[in-house]
Amino acid sequence: MLFLDSMEDALAELTTNEYVLSTEAKLKNFVREVLEKVGVERSAAEIVGDVLVAADERGVESHGVARLESYYVSRIRSGKLNPKPNYHVARETETTVVYDADNGLGHPVGKLAMEAVIEKARKHGSAFGAVRNSNHFGIAGYYAMLALPHDMIGMASTNSVRYGAPTYGKEVMLGTNPLAFAIPANKEPAFVLDFATTTVPRGKLEVYKRKEKRLAEGWAIDEAGNPTTDPDAALRGALLPLGGFGVEHGGHKGYGLGLLVDILCGVLSGGAFGTGIPTMKEAKEGAISHWFGAFRIDGFRDPAAFKSDMDRELRAFKDSPRAPGQNRIYVAGEIEHELTLAHRKNGVPVHYKVWDGLQKLAADLQIPFDLAR
Amino acid sequence: MLFLDSMEDALAELTTNEYVLSTEAKLKNFVREVLEKVGVERSAAEIVGDVLVAADERGVESHGVARLESYYVSRIRSGKLNPKPNYHVARETETTVVYDADNGLGHPVGKLAMEAVIEKARKHGSAFGAVRNSNHFGIAGYYAMLALPHDMIGMASTNSVRYGAPTYGKEVMLGTNPLAFAIPANKEPAFVLDFATTTVPRGKLEVYKRKEKRLAEGWAIDEAGNPTTDPDAALRGALLPLGGFGVEHGGHKGYGLGLLVDILCGVLSGGAFGTGIPTMKEAKEGAISHWFGAFRIDGFRDPAAFKSDMDRELRAFKDSPRAPGQNRIYVAGEIEHELTLAHRKNGVPVHYKVWDGLQKLAADLQIPFDLAR
Repeated sequence: MLFLDSMEDALAELTTNEYVLSTEAKLKNFVREVLEKVGVERSAAEIVGDVLVAADERGVESHGVARLESYYVSRIRSGKLNPKPNYHVARETETTVVYDADNGLGHPVGKLAMEAVIEKARKHGSAFGAVRNSNHFGIAGYYAMLALPHDMIGMASTNSVRYGAPTYGKEVMLGTNPLAFAIPANKEPAFVLDFATTTVPRGKLEVYKRKEKRLAEGWAIDEAGNPTTDPDAALRGALLPLGGFGVEHGGHKGYGLGLLVDILCGVLSGGAFGTGIPTMKEAKEGAISHWFGAFRIDGFRDPAAFKSDMDRELRAFKDSPRAPGQNRIYVAGEIEHELTLAHRKNGVPVHYKVWDGLQKLAADLQIPFDLAR
Repeated sequence: MLFLDSMEDALAELTTNEYVLSTEAKLKNFVREVLEKVGVERSAAEIVGDVLVAADERGVESHGVARLESYYVSRIRSGKLNPKPNYHVARETETTVVYDADNGLGHPVGKLAMEAVIEKARKHGSAFGAVRNSNHFGIAGYYAMLALPHDMIGMASTNSVRYGAPTYGKEVMLGTNPLAFAIPANKEPAFVLDFATTTVPRGKLEVYKRKEKRLAEGWAIDEAGNPTTDPDAALRGALLPLGGFGVEHGGHKGYGLGLLVDILCGVLSGGAFGTGIPTMKEAKEGAISHWFGAFRIDGFRDPAAFKSDMDRELRAFKDSPRAPGQNRIYVAGEIEHELTLAHRKNGVPVHYKVWDGLQKLAADLQIPFDLAR
């Protein structure tokens, strides 16, 4: 649900000769080696590899190994991000838990917290958790999906560096603040809704700038707070919430969702929130918070019957009459699921610029570079 | 968050001489009398009055007493909706509950379920609930807000008559399927996000048709599945999800949220879902489901500190720099809160057409009509 419009688009993209193929195992191993080299514990480094490669397999390149150097390694090497944090429980009840991430990587503590939430939900039916003083944790969907094998519905969210303006505002006040929900089915792939609460991610503005294309209306405003379709002006301005400028197309709803995420993550965890969250200009580590939830399906009905009904539900949408010119109707998480299967079979594509970056990183850290499939 | 763009718009609307003023007590009492007259138990009738008048006070006229006759009374009188249902628990654990509404009014069973969820969350920290075989329950925000006095975060949702198409589709497959979240603050009004997952509600198309205005782009498609700004064509076609047509403005996100709601309400409760939900053409009572959740803030941190930080969070957004020409930045639920205070003080406005309808209903049922403030 992030950058992908359709399977056709996703697969067409991969035939542009801009991609080199690797494998899941090689990429995960590489991420682990790199992070261990800069001081991260092996078990934590493995989890980061899991999350990043899952993103690449799901077609969410922006959240995959492309970020290894800039988001994680460089910040550890410059001493801004703690490679050996003391992840610890700050508060706990039978159905809630709050972790303090001690300015460490977000992925390991995110998985720790979601697993604690799942264990609590296994015992008591439902549970919630949060993490404060953390950093970027990759794709929110990864954590929500951890609930699936337990016949639970999973939820995950995070606040993030501020790029977006509130409705009627012009200041960057909100991150892309994604929300994710994962719900199991039987034969159909699980329903996995994982979406930024801004209309588009900031990376999309950068792509349009590079391609010298105008933005669509409703994506961004300029520094003065006026709508703009100029990528340069937008990059100096702010992203708009899902629903776009003003309220005519429901921008207040996307703004409400973005603020909801900042509250559930930042205020609830006792972490940073609002203007305490970093911007592009004032980078600040350890100011990100996450939120998780899970509940057992059998608290409502027999999970087998539920999952069989999920198949019927998802198929009904996929089989419903299509708009003119459309080949296919999707449900959330379907494209990502199919890409994962395809990439596991045929190799995981890495953009050549990212590939070059990883090669440089390997040389820099004096670790072997053997990623080709 | 429903029809309201700003306080100025809301208050300007009321000075058009199209409104007659009543009071909260009189309106609630009238709803109770009407429903008792058609066979509803007094305690249940009182709850419906509470929910409907709360909507009118919050400025959500479309979900207030305007619907008393068409949505509830006429369906009871024609034998389609059960005035004396056997609301009963279909499944229950320490942190979950499912009610069967026996084709009764949605409001009393909705309140029953949310109160059970809150009681379970009080004991165990977090809880979820659902209701199946129900009917329209008014504004979702009402139920989410029941969590507020308990220092909990409340969630509520419902599926609804199908008006909306999925992304790339043209068939009505989804209701306006609202989602509501309520989070308490200290001095600031609570954050109450209550929004339809379609860009606009169907009622908005009807208003535009009546005023002979063109729709905004991204609100609706025609019967063939093409975007349209013609209210007539749109009313024969389908609403679009939040984010509009296709994926360019994030329509797949609104579609994902709408489907999420149908799953959480319909599939999870064991009720009707997908194409089992009624459309305008095939009305069907007892096919609506609701979903509720609540969790204790003190499972995360001290509620007083949380609420004090909520004040800071909400104020930061309200005080942030405004876009050109804007007088004010709002947070979710703020306009509704201020309108409630104003209407409790100055009288609850009822549109004259609604007023006339209520007067006719009173005559019809031979009950006194004394609603004027």
